[in-house]
Amino acid sequence: MLTSADPRTGRAWPTGIEATDAVTVATTAAAASKAFAVTRWSTRAWRAGLLDAIAVALESHREELTGVADRETGLGAARLAGEVGRSAFQFRLFADALREGSYVEATIDHAETTELGPQPEIRRMLVPIGPVAVFGSSNFPFAFSVAGGDTASALAGGNTVVLKAHGSHLETSARSFEVISDAVAGYGGPAGTIGIVYGTEAGRVLVSDPHIRAVGFTGSLTAGRALIDIINQREEPIPFYGELSSLNPLVITPAAAAARADAIADGLFGSYTLGAGQFCTKPGVAFIPVGADGDRIVAGLVERTTAANAQVLLNERIVTSFGEIRDRLIAAGAASIAVAGAVDSSGFAASPTVLAIDADAISPAVAEEAFGPLVVVARYDDLEEIYAALDAVPDSLTATIHHEPGEPIDALVRELAPHAGRIVFNGYPTGVRVSWGQHHGGTWPSTNSQHTSVGVSAIRRFLRPIAFQGAPESVLPSELREENVDGVPRRVDGRLRIG
Amino acid sequence: MLTSADPRTGRAWPTGIEATDAVTVATTAAAASKAFAVTRWSTRAWRAGLLDAIAVALESHREELTGVADRETGLGAARLAGEVGRSAFQFRLFADALREGSYVEATIDHAETTELGPQPEIRRMLVPIGPVAVFGSSNFPFAFSVAGGDTASALAGGNTVVLKAHGSHLETSARSFEVISDAVAGYGGPAGTIGIVYGTEAGRVLVSDPHIRAVGFTGSLTAGRALIDIINQREEPIPFYGELSSLNPLVITPAAAAARADAIADGLFGSYTLGAGQFCTKPGVAFIPVGADGDRIVAGLVERTTAANAQVLLNERIVTSFGEIRDRLIAAGAASIAVAGAVDSSGFAASPTVLAIDADAISPAVAEEAFGPLVVVARYDDLEEIYAALDAVPDSLTATIHHEPGEPIDALVRELAPHAGRIVFNGYPTGVRVSWGQHHGGTWPSTNSQHTSVGVSAIRRFLRPIAFQGAPESVLPSELREENVDGVPRRVDGRLRIG
Repeated sequence: MLTSADPRTGRAWPTGIEATDAVTVATTAAAASKAFAVTRWSTRAWRAGLLDAIAVALESHREELTGVADRETGLGAARLAGEVGRSAFQFRLFADALREGSYVEATIDHAETTELGPQPEIRRMLVPIGPVAVFGSSNFPFAFSVAGGDTASALAGGNTVVLKAHGSHLETSARSFEVISDAVAGYGGPAGTIGIVYGTEAGRVLVSDPHIRAVGFTGSLTAGRALIDIINQREEPIPFYGELSSLNPLVITPAAAAARADAIADGLFGSYTLGAGQFCTKPGVAFIPVGADGDRIVAGLVERTTAANAQVLLNERIVTSFGEIRDRLIAAGAASIAVAGAVDSSGFAASPTVLAIDADAISPAVAEEAFGPLVVVARYDDLEEIYAALDAVPDSLTATIHHEPGEPIDALVRELAPHAGRIVFNGYPTGVRVSWGQHHGGTWPSTNSQHTSVGVSAIRRFLRPIAFQGAPESVLPSELREENVDGVPRRVDGRLRIG
Repeated sequence: MLTSADPRTGRAWPTGIEATDAVTVATTAAAASKAFAVTRWSTRAWRAGLLDAIAVALESHREELTGVADRETGLGAARLAGEVGRSAFQFRLFADALREGSYVEATIDHAETTELGPQPEIRRMLVPIGPVAVFGSSNFPFAFSVAGGDTASALAGGNTVVLKAHGSHLETSARSFEVISDAVAGYGGPAGTIGIVYGTEAGRVLVSDPHIRAVGFTGSLTAGRALIDIINQREEPIPFYGELSSLNPLVITPAAAAARADAIADGLFGSYTLGAGQFCTKPGVAFIPVGADGDRIVAGLVERTTAANAQVLLNERIVTSFGEIRDRLIAAGAASIAVAGAVDSSGFAASPTVLAIDADAISPAVAEEAFGPLVVVARYDDLEEIYAALDAVPDSLTATIHHEPGEPIDALVRELAPHAGRIVFNGYPTGVRVSWGQHHGGTWPSTNSQHTSVGVSAIRRFLRPIAFQGAPESVLPSELREENVDGVPRRVDGRLRIG
C-alpha cells in the first residue's frame, strides 16, 4: 500500500493505492496499444471533441481536485484552482490546433518533370506513433502531471497514454485520472486510451515495455538519466522527451539596477519564492552589478527574505535535498546573506535563503540547481565576467535580462541565447504562458530534446511523417486529397496555402 | 595509408589519404565549433547563396567527380553523373526553402489577457544547434555522402558539418569535400564550416566529441547501433538520425497480377537489380498471389534473372555479406529459384538471385535484408497471410502496393501504413524524389527518428526552438520583428499568415 502525506504537517496516511506490479503494467501498456489501433485512425474533429470533453470534465471537478491536491502538496487552493484552469485551457488549445490542422504539415508535390526527369506525385502528412508513457512531475500536480501538456499533446496527436503517477501526489493523480478516464469513456473513446501505473518500479517497467513508443518526462536530471539508461537497453529505441534541470540565470544590467532597484528586488523575491521555489523556471542565479545600485537590490532582497516565513515544500525528500544542496553551495564559496524565519518542527518546510558570491568566482559547484526557495546573487564588475561565468552554469530553460530602453544589450543576448530556450526581457521566468508560440525547453541538461510539453509544437514529438506516392484518392486521408474539404493549411508544389 | 579499390577488377591502390588520428578529429570538431560561432548568426539569404554556390561547384565538377566515383564504386558514369545532378538539385531545394523561410516556424503571440490572466508577448522561431557529424553511405557516393542531404540540410540550418568519409569511396569523398570546401571559402564562409575525417576509429572519436551536437547517418543497422552505443556514453546526449535497414515489402494484388503480370515482372526485376540491388529502398520481399497469374509474374522474374549477368557490388565486404545472408535465407526455408550468370573470378560481384517461399512460412529469419540483387518471392493465398507475415518483417522505409482501379485496398493500406514511411502505389520504391513533400524514413529499424535526410523537413533535425518574451525589437531576428520585412510565413496570434 502506497502512502501519501500532508506536507504542512508531515502526517502520512495509507492511500488505498497499491504499487502496480509488472504484470499489470504490461496489461496496461497492451490495452493502450489495442486502443491505439482505434485512435490512430480517428479524425482531427473527433479528437478535438475528446479534448474539449476532458477540459469540461476538469473544470467541473475543479473544486474537488483542488482539495485533494492541496492536502497532498500544500500548494494552496488558489494556485491549484488556477492550475486546473490552466490544464483545461491547454486541452482546449490543442483542440484548436486540431481543428486548424496545420500541425499535420500536409504537403503535396504533384507529379511533374524536373531537370532530374519525370517525378512521381508525393503527399505527406504527420501521423501518430503509438502509446506514450507520461511521467508526472512533483511540482505541478495538474499542469505537468496526469492532466498536463504531455497527456494533452499525446492524445491530440491520436496516440494513447499510460501515465506514471508522481509519488508525491498519488490521490491527486488517481482522481485526475478518473476524471479524464470517465470523460474519455463518456465521449466514446476506446478502453485503454488512457491508463495509469503507480510506483517507481512500475515506471521502470513501463519504459521498457515494447508497446510504449515514446516517453514524456518532467522531473530531475537524475531520474531522467535513469530512465534514459533503461531506454538504451530496449531492443527498439524510443524517444525520451525530458524536461530535467534548470538554473535560469537572470542578469540585471547597470542601467536597470540604477532605474529600478526596489522593483527588481521585489520581483526577484517573488519569483524565487513562487510556489516555494519549486518551479523549473525559478531564477537560481541573479547577476547583479557591484556598486550602490546593485547593493540596493541585494539589500531589498535580503530585507524581504529575512522578513519572510519558512515555506512548505512538496515532500520530505525535497526538504532533505534542499538542505544538502544549500550546504554544498556554501561549502563551494557562496556566503549565506539572508535566511527567512525558522522552520517549525512539523511538516516539510524550508527557509527562503539568499546566497552571495562574486561572479568571477562562479564554478560548476555553485551552479547546482537547488529545488526550493534559494537564489544565488552573483555580483559582477562588467558583463565579461557574466559571459565567463556562463561557461560554468549549465544550460537552462530560460535566461532573463533586466535592462533599460536604449541600453546596448545585443552582445548580452548573443551570449545568453545559446544557453537557454526562452529569453525573458524585463520580466521573470516563472510563469509559462500556454500559447501557440511558447517554448519550454533549452539545451542539455535543461531538456534532452528539441520539443517540450508546453506550446502547440509539443504535439510534434508524438507524430511521424508518412508519404503516399501515387496513391488513389480513396485511400488518402482527407488532409491529403486533392480537394481540400477541411480547409487545412497545406504546402502544394512548394507553396504554402492557407485553406 | 588507406587504400581504395576498383570493384570491377578488385585492384586496390594506396589513396594517399591517412586515417585521421584522434587529435586531428578533435581539432576538426573544434574548428567546426568555432565556425558555428559565425554561421549561427548568418541570415537565411546568406546561407541560400552559400548552398547555390555549392550546387554550382558540384555541377562544374560533375565530369571529374563522376570519373573518380566510377573507379571506386563501379556504379557507371550515367548513374553517377545523374547523382551529382541530384545532389546539386538538393542544395538548390534547400536554398529555396531558406528564401521562403517558413521552415523557421516563426510564431508570434502578442501580449493579451486571457481567462488565465494577463499573458506576456512570446515570439518563437527555430535556430541552429551546432556542428553536425555526417556519416556518408556506401551506396550513394554523392546523394547520401559528402555532398548529400545531411550536409545540405545541416548547412541550410546554419550549422557546420564534420563529415566521416565512407571507406568504400575515399577519393570520391575527398574530392567532393574539396569542391564543397572551396565553394564555401570562395563564398566567404568561415574556415571550419565543413570538415572531414577518415577511418572507422575517427568516426567513433567524432561522435564522442563534445563539440558535435547531432549525428546524421546512412548505413547498416549494425554500424548505426555501434554509434548509438557510443553516443549513449557521452556526458551530453545528442540526437542520432540514422537511416539503417529496410526490407521494403511489395504486394501485388490478385487483380494487378491478372492485369499486368509481365509488366510487373519487368518492373520488379528492374527495381531489385537497380544499382546492383544496393538501394536502401530495394524491394526485398514481394508478395505474389498463388495461381496462374502469380505464376506468370514469377516466371517472368525467373526468366529475366536467369538471363542476367552478375553485377558489380561496391566492395568485398558487401559481396561476402551478400553470400552469407543468401545462404542464411535458404537455410531458413527460402528456395533458390533463379540465379543470374556466374561471377567472374576478378572483382567484387554477385549474381542476381530470386528466392521463393510461402507467405505463411515467413519468419524473421527469412526477413533479413540482403544488401545486393536478391528478392524473396512470397506466395500468398489471401491477404490475411500477408498481414500475418508483416509481423515477422521488420518495419521499412517503404511499402508498395500494385493494384487495379476499383479494387478494395483500404484494409491493405491500413495494414501496411504502420510499418513504413512511404507507401508506393503501382510503382517501385527505388528512386526517391527530392521534393518538399518527400519522406525517406520509417519506423525502427529502418530509421530511429521522425526525420530523414531527404525532403525539406530534413532541416528540422538540426534546429531547436528559441522563444523571446517581451523582447525589444532591436534584439529580435528579422523573422520575428513586428514588421514582416522578409515576407516570411508566420503564425500570429494563432493564425497562420503567408508573408
